[in-house]
Amino acid sequence: MFDQQLIQPAIDGKTKPPGSLGRVEQLAVQIAKIQQTLAPRAHTCKLTIFAADHGMALAGVSAYPQAVTRQMVLNFLAGGAASNVFAHALGIDFEVVDAGVVGDPIDDANLLDRRIAAGTANALEGPAMTTTHYDMAYAAGHALGSRSSHDGVCFGEMGIGNTAAASLVAAKILGLDVADLVGRGTGLDDAGVARKAALSAQAAARTPDQLEPAQALTEYGGFEMVMMTAAMIAAARAARIVMIDGFIASASALAASRLAPESTQNFIYAHRSAERGHQHVLDALKATPLLDLDMRLGEGTGALLAWPLVKAAAAMLREMASFDDAGVSGPA
Amino acid sequence: MFDQQLIQPAIDGKTKPPGSLGRVEQLAVQIAKIQQTLAPRAHTCKLTIFAADHGMALAGVSAYPQAVTRQMVLNFLAGGAASNVFAHALGIDFEVVDAGVVGDPIDDANLLDRRIAAGTANALEGPAMTTTHYDMAYAAGHALGSRSSHDGVCFGEMGIGNTAAASLVAAKILGLDVADLVGRGTGLDDAGVARKAALSAQAAARTPDQLEPAQALTEYGGFEMVMMTAAMIAAARAARIVMIDGFIASASALAASRLAPESTQNFIYAHRSAERGHQHVLDALKATPLLDLDMRLGEGTGALLAWPLVKAAAAMLREMASFDDAGVSGPA
Repeated sequence: MFDQQLIQPAIDGKTKPPGSLGRVEQLAVQIAKIQQTLAPRAHTCKLTIFAADHGMALAGVSAYPQAVTRQMVLNFLAGGAASNVFAHALGIDFEVVDAGVVGDPIDDANLLDRRIAAGTANALEGPAMTTTHYDMAYAAGHALGSRSSHDGVCFGEMGIGNTAAASLVAAKILGLDVADLVGRGTGLDDAGVARKAALSAQAAARTPDQLEPAQALTEYGGFEMVMMTAAMIAAARAARIVMIDGFIASASALAASRLAPESTQNFIYAHRSAERGHQHVLDALKATPLLDLDMRLGEGTGALLAWPLVKAAAAMLREMASFDDAGVSGPA
Repeated sequence: MFDQQLIQPAIDGKTKPPGSLGRVEQLAVQIAKIQQTLAPRAHTCKLTIFAADHGMALAGVSAYPQAVTRQMVLNFLAGGAASNVFAHALGIDFEVVDAGVVGDPIDDANLLDRRIAAGTANALEGPAMTTTHYDMAYAAGHALGSRSSHDGVCFGEMGIGNTAAASLVAAKILGLDVADLVGRGTGLDDAGVARKAALSAQAAARTPDQLEPAQALTEYGGFEMVMMTAAMIAAARAARIVMIDGFIASASALAASRLAPESTQNFIYAHRSAERGHQHVLDALKATPLLDLDMRLGEGTGALLAWPLVKAAAAMLREMASFDDAGVSGPA
């Protein structure tokens, strides 16, 4: 059993002052526990982006038209999005899943087709999805998360309207007022935020203040969020390092933490999003992200940028010389 | 002339909400200015570690014996130190320079021998180095910094006693009380910090409250600090991206910023050190580091961990599709 008591002395024996690598040492402990070894590996990583549309988007909760979800899927397939470019620059594999984009199925051999429906229903009027659709999305996400042979996995999302959905899901899981979680999303002005907050409050009023995670996702979530939640749980069970991106991914991680609490041992929180609701979710998860770069894009971009820190942490424990090995003196 | 007015529209045309990549966008602007192109490159990077000893170490300003400097040079050459392991994990080239380690010259074909002397003199009693030695160290550092063919350069240091030296150099450049800059270094306890502060104050009392940068380095610096200062200036003149590590590297960057103010346009501040004096130096440089991971090791470790962010920023500007290219709609 590789626990803190076994791992910490191995780290303290490395040729550096004790504790001098700060959070990198904490990361190394976590990774050693995940992989149950003092020689952990963080060589390979894959980003899976889940894309889906939201019925609520048509009510006007985003600065962008709903068609952008589909356009961005095509952009991912062509390699032109921020997440493509970051993944390529950092040596991380990339794939995109159609979890339920509006319009006809996209015909592309590189797209993973896991379409549940052509977008969710409008959560202002009723549940975003049926329980059957929830179960289908959960099963698809679980299968995708179980399958990985990579040391680390990043999960990202694309879906116009999904900061509103994530705000509602997180608010209902935590029993908070959704108005406290609604933010600018992709770039709403003050009037847009006010409109989004009013619509979100209207949607929230349909159900009790607090819901079970699966209920919250069924009532307000998106197919991409359900798949991410399931994929995070499955990847943790498969002993993968699970990189948690920004606001929407963290809302899914919050659901995962309630559905399968032990899975959080594998979660590494990558980036503190500039989106307002994120801090509430991080507080609930007792999470302090590695990076704080004022980003708010989604697509797994924060998870990608934090992966090199994980690589370095694993390499530290696996490859650094000990004081004994190197003949270096300890403190006088 | 690639200035902000030319670069910002190129970034805003990429397929993402304006500003949504936060500090990564600011990095991209800086790199585009350095390289004078809208297709910047951050493919290759090299870490150069400068190692040297400090006469003041013998008075007891460090938790570790002076012999550790030499032992760590051998550890760098054997590939076992944190900086070796991080550099390898992140695809960054590595080299180590003997700038003036105590004892006989180290015979190793992979070591760059730029020895000025077997350590500095004891700054408690008189100048740490002669002006001739300062000039020699500056010339050696400048030559090393001019030579690079890498897109980016990281500079690191190793030298028992050099947080005391850096505190003195920074205090004298800024006209501050050195007691405000002295910290735990590699891990002093409270009594050790008190002793280090008292010795540093005694050394500081030899000279006026404020000194010119070259004077401050001559009186209190180390050969590694002089070489880093010169190398940073030279690398900036050669249009390299210059990654600035933690406290000691930042004290050298502070000297560089006074000797050649335009060089700071090429400086990217990597990591906020847990060492107490760093914030004073960062404030003087108006710098907000990219990372804050509670590290305090030196060796360029912070610079190494921040390099992937620079890679990603350059790739964003060079490779991301524009809204026009990708047929993605803008805000509604």
